[in-house]
Amino acid sequence: MAKSDVKLLGFWPSSYVNRVQIALNVKSIDYEFVEERFRPKSELLLSSNPVHKKIPVFFHGDKPICESLVIVQYIDEEWTNGPSILPSDPYDRAVARFWVAYVDEKWFPSLGELRSAQGEEAKAALIEKVVEGLALLEEAFVECSKGKAYFGGDSIGYLDIAFGSFLGWLKVVEIVADVKLLDEAKIPGLAQWAVRFSSNDAVKDVLPEPEKLIEFVKIIEARIKAAAK
Amino acid sequence: MAKSDVKLLGFWPSSYVNRVQIALNVKSIDYEFVEERFRPKSELLLSSNPVHKKIPVFFHGDKPICESLVIVQYIDEEWTNGPSILPSDPYDRAVARFWVAYVDEKWFPSLGELRSAQGEEAKAALIEKVVEGLALLEEAFVECSKGKAYFGGDSIGYLDIAFGSFLGWLKVVEIVADVKLLDEAKIPGLAQWAVRFSSNDAVKDVLPEPEKLIEFVKIIEARIKAAAK
Repeated sequence: MAKSDVKLLGFWPSSYVNRVQIALNVKSIDYEFVEERFRPKSELLLSSNPVHKKIPVFFHGDKPICESLVIVQYIDEEWTNGPSILPSDPYDRAVARFWVAYVDEKWFPSLGELRSAQGEEAKAALIEKVVEGLALLEEAFVECSKGKAYFGGDSIGYLDIAFGSFLGWLKVVEIVADVKLLDEAKIPGLAQWAVRFSSNDAVKDVLPEPEKLIEFVKIIEARIKAAAK
Repeated sequence: MAKSDVKLLGFWPSSYVNRVQIALNVKSIDYEFVEERFRPKSELLLSSNPVHKKIPVFFHGDKPICESLVIVQYIDEEWTNGPSILPSDPYDRAVARFWVAYVDEKWFPSLGELRSAQGEEAKAALIEKVVEGLALLEEAFVECSKGKAYFGGDSIGYLDIAFGSFLGWLKVVEIVADVKLLDEAKIPGLAQWAVRFSSNDAVKDVLPEPEKLIEFVKIIEARIKAAAK
């Protein structure tokens, strides 16, 4: 497959874009990265994802595919040679899908709220929620990894990609809210997994450094402030 | 597979439970239906879905599986003989997954808000949102069905089950908010599909009648009112 046939429209700070990048790396698929502008949105984005107008958009030939998890599953199902991203056993697949939905619908929204929380009481309640979520994910790690390095076993799988893509932002929250979340004393499996995941060849050049993300947030906030004047 | 090995913990008015029932019917799988109580929640529910404490929970042997879409995909992947629920082509599967996510995350929440909307202005804005969503789903129907009877082609598929499971509640909103949503003049494909889907053998004894759902809501509201006194 020629490189130009596989294209990803995205932006480096987006965890959802990072998911697709990691999945492509896991499968060793060459692709063209097209950087989306912050504002105004590009014609390519508006025409290829008219429903949500959001990155990532993945192009395989002339076919656009939207929504990060849909894209990751597509990549796994379309490029069947190379490591599998989803587990091969239907029950293991169901367990992975369950936790991926949990991360997206419950855990990450709490982390986002914590990042911008005002007031000590609200902050403490959100820290408790995020930490409880991490304790559940520690249990999930034990169940899914079966003593191996990743949720997916010996190699990076669906839940690794979905949850791991948020590690940069998790570290941002640790810095901004001044709280230890990936606490090796409480969640040793996850804490060690996070180190392994971040330094994996398919991940290390994709996952943004927290300092770079914090700088990015400052630039965006300044722009929004300037635009509101 | 003995009937007792396949069990569904649920409650008839739940669209999410209905999805699993329809998927099991499509695959002609015999199962035991265990009715969940409204309050307090059963021990079986609390122990088998400790994260969300929500129905449906599907049991295959001693393995519990939660989250309706996870269950439907599991059923499709575990019982591979019988009609396929997800399309066989990876791109078609991506398109179906995209629209299922749209229905769950965008369209159905608007329908829920419309059901309990107060004030003419709020109601009108929500009707517009729901109707716009149905226009998008009409386009999706044309794209996915390729001139056939269902989103899934000749037989009921993933998007049929996910979207179709909400038809009872859609009709409730048509009655309660006094508005025509499945308007054959505007969305002829969907309007005709809805009639076909509702009378399909795998669906007709599962999908609750709107009148029964309205009666159910009244009972629940009265109970909540009485408990608050």
